[in-house]
Amino acid sequence: MSAALRIGVFDSGFGGLTVLRELLPQAPQAEFFYVGDTARLPYGSKSRATIARYAVESAQFLVDQGIEYLVIACNTASALALDEIRAAVRIPVLGVIETGAASAAAASRSRDVLVLATDATVQIHAYDQACAQHGLRALEKACPLLVPLIEEGWTEHPVTAEVLRIYLDEALRQAQAANSQPDTVLLGCTHYPLLRPLLARTLPVAMRFLDSAATTAEHVRADLVARGLMPKQGIALAAAAQMTDADEPAQEAVGARCHFYATDSIEKFQRLGSRFLGRAMHTVTLMDIGG
Amino acid sequence: MSAALRIGVFDSGFGGLTVLRELLPQAPQAEFFYVGDTARLPYGSKSRATIARYAVESAQFLVDQGIEYLVIACNTASALALDEIRAAVRIPVLGVIETGAASAAAASRSRDVLVLATDATVQIHAYDQACAQHGLRALEKACPLLVPLIEEGWTEHPVTAEVLRIYLDEALRQAQAANSQPDTVLLGCTHYPLLRPLLARTLPVAMRFLDSAATTAEHVRADLVARGLMPKQGIALAAAAQMTDADEPAQEAVGARCHFYATDSIEKFQRLGSRFLGRAMHTVTLMDIGG
Repeated sequence: MSAALRIGVFDSGFGGLTVLRELLPQAPQAEFFYVGDTARLPYGSKSRATIARYAVESAQFLVDQGIEYLVIACNTASALALDEIRAAVRIPVLGVIETGAASAAAASRSRDVLVLATDATVQIHAYDQACAQHGLRALEKACPLLVPLIEEGWTEHPVTAEVLRIYLDEALRQAQAANSQPDTVLLGCTHYPLLRPLLARTLPVAMRFLDSAATTAEHVRADLVARGLMPKQGIALAAAAQMTDADEPAQEAVGARCHFYATDSIEKFQRLGSRFLGRAMHTVTLMDIGG
Repeated sequence: MSAALRIGVFDSGFGGLTVLRELLPQAPQAEFFYVGDTARLPYGSKSRATIARYAVESAQFLVDQGIEYLVIACNTASALALDEIRAAVRIPVLGVIETGAASAAAASRSRDVLVLATDATVQIHAYDQACAQHGLRALEKACPLLVPLIEEGWTEHPVTAEVLRIYLDEALRQAQAANSQPDTVLLGCTHYPLLRPLLARTLPVAMRFLDSAATTAEHVRADLVARGLMPKQGIALAAAAQMTDADEPAQEAVGARCHFYATDSIEKFQRLGSRFLGRAMHTVTLMDIGG
């Protein structure tokens, strides 16, 4: 076992790879272990007890790989199973919802935040509760077509632009009716960072958007430093380690310090996952965690 | 127990309700038992052994309700588990893929058929094999966005029209490259009948489309008569029993002779299911079939 800090990242699928992508430059000397529980997705339609059981199983598997820090990059599991995961493992655990809400609280002046998320995340009002703890009002907008459009690869497609425009129009009309003036858009789904260029062109100028992948990575870095798990100079290294997708030696280095596990369909995980991670995924291991 | 013929219909979700909708007028004196295994969908990403186990469990549950005939209204289960289901139950079993292919064989003159289906159905080449048995060449086109668009309720939406146009363009270009001249479009997904009006406006005039919901219902009726399970005059009754959605007394009669079971989220099943069935679903029972 090497001396590098080992960080676990868990998601029900490959969306959480956008979080890992942001983590790589933030913790440049860490080794990463990613689990995508693809055989049992979508979590959103399952009961709280079932989701907690699944998430704890994956967390336990990651702990067995020697991780010292765990990031829950799955919105459903962050909303419904964070307490159970924290009770089951003896390492620090951070979830995407709390970091997203904290960043929105730091960014918003109007104290009204528009949250774009999946139907499942909106139905459990995951961001509503997390934002309320920061004195923010969240207007949650379900955008069920965005994940399928992203998985189809239509991230810059006119159809996706039109769907996004329709969702934003509906959300802003709902905001007006509720006398809400959101100045910040929080992307409450780990698929959505792939829509950043489209969002930048579609959003009204007065609004800024935050994605929970980037905000989570920033919180993890700060937390690692605060806990003494990463030296402060890690931050300087991080800036130096910023990689572009064309940077081949850096890509190889990334491959060497990332370990990917999926519970079903390795081929699909590699094919779709590479787009979410922004670089090729050479080795994915099939993982059997029971059914 | 009444003396009415009991027919079971099984799907992984609520798409199979389009098949039930077509069956109602075809077997007007039968009682129907529908299982949607919503807790474990999508079947398409799971292994053959897992799908067979799930489908056999549901088939067995339906047999326990006293059904004498079983319709597998799930494309994945029809493709991967029909033999296992037939081996497990002692009643006749019919699957949507074989009936769709048989109807396409009767309709096509060019012997080339374009099949629109989900990614999972295309990847296992379910229709390719079934069509080949009838001497037909199937060009299978995966249309992953259609199910989410239908579930969003955008069945007549300009965005859906545009997506359908893009998929058809791609498919017809692929057909041309393969020197294939499809004259028939087979809808190989039980969600797609909700797109009938849009398809009628979008397809080239020279092409006709068949949906596997309507073709399955016709095959079931003929098979019931051939097996002596339904009198021939059932056909005359069927014509008399054709119901419109506004026909309130007929709707009540339908409610009384349909029993719905879902394995998760009764509320979503009722809300979405009503659109697929074309009428309100008053009672859905939560069913625990292990997991």
